[in-house]
Amino acid sequence: MQILRDRIIKDGKYLGNGILKVDAFMNHQIDPALMKAVGEEFGKRFANVNATRILTAETSGIAPSLAAGMVLQVPIVFARKHQPITMAPGAYKETAESHTHKKDVELIVSAEYMNSSDRILIIDDFLASARTILALVKLVQASGATLVGVGAVIEKGFEGGRTLLKPLNVPVESLAEIERFDGDKIIFAGQASKL
Amino acid sequence: MQILRDRIIKDGKYLGNGILKVDAFMNHQIDPALMKAVGEEFGKRFANVNATRILTAETSGIAPSLAAGMVLQVPIVFARKHQPITMAPGAYKETAESHTHKKDVELIVSAEYMNSSDRILIIDDFLASARTILALVKLVQASGATLVGVGAVIEKGFEGGRTLLKPLNVPVESLAEIERFDGDKIIFAGQASKL
Repeated sequence: MQILRDRIIKDGKYLGNGILKVDAFMNHQIDPALMKAVGEEFGKRFANVNATRILTAETSGIAPSLAAGMVLQVPIVFARKHQPITMAPGAYKETAESHTHKKDVELIVSAEYMNSSDRILIIDDFLASARTILALVKLVQASGATLVGVGAVIEKGFEGGRTLLKPLNVPVESLAEIERFDGDKIIFAGQASKL
Repeated sequence: MQILRDRIIKDGKYLGNGILKVDAFMNHQIDPALMKAVGEEFGKRFANVNATRILTAETSGIAPSLAAGMVLQVPIVFARKHQPITMAPGAYKETAESHTHKKDVELIVSAEYMNSSDRILIIDDFLASARTILALVKLVQASGATLVGVGAVIEKGFEGGRTLLKPLNVPVESLAEIERFDGDKIIFAGQASKL
């Protein structure tokens, strides 16, 4: 997705240790026009998987998932990191390590909003080590729902998450795939020769 | 906003102690069509305040704020509860008590995404005691930006938050105002006689 790659080049910031800061347009500040375009692209790529719900993780997965849900016309469920007092007992829970917060986080989804008749599309901001996404997959499996696809706005190909998702046998789509960082340069997959 | 009031009646659940659960369409599961309508309504009500950015708090404020930002065509900044390793030093911080998590939470906004030339519209899911919104107001003031309005999807009129916002002298708009709960019935402002 060219406008996304352009935006990452323009406003993304490589902080070292494999960490890309995209706070300017997705993870702290959100550009609504870009998110709308991201949602439309997810809508195209997952037009045929017949998802009944999108599952994401709070916080940064919410914006791209909502934009995709507006296009695919299905509800979004965001896994919560803390159980609010409004949540009914009997929720599904998994633990995932957060790369940007350097600690384990719990992901919790109420059984009210995911069940065995669902076809779940997982969407998140990043596909890197796939730790968060695999925790979401376990939540889907715990509910008895069918996983129909995984979408990420930005993929860090060098962290190997895609390989871990292969056994799931569902389409895995990222809208901008970073192959590697070269100093503070961002090299996208298939684009090394152009830079 | 009639479709919102209807949805609250249909899918909202009064849990006692003034707590309304709206996890079915906003705070855990998100209905994208409803959020789009919410965004359009905020867009109408704040069409003339010339906001340059929308400020909200993670997590549940993100969906209505993004929907409003899509209409008003301004970026959304969500105050973070934990400082991620990507955040630059020199962030604005305030503390607010969370009603649904029963503990104090920090709200943090990077100085990169709010400054003295900004005209800030605050949007959140609930206006109740106004604790979260007043913490966001302090963040706006700390940055030197101008507050131009406050919008909430649902107002719990009986918690008195609106009175606390009056001295700010900006338009305060809620899309559904609950006057009180009567048993497990939800009574909207101005509608008591119709029920």
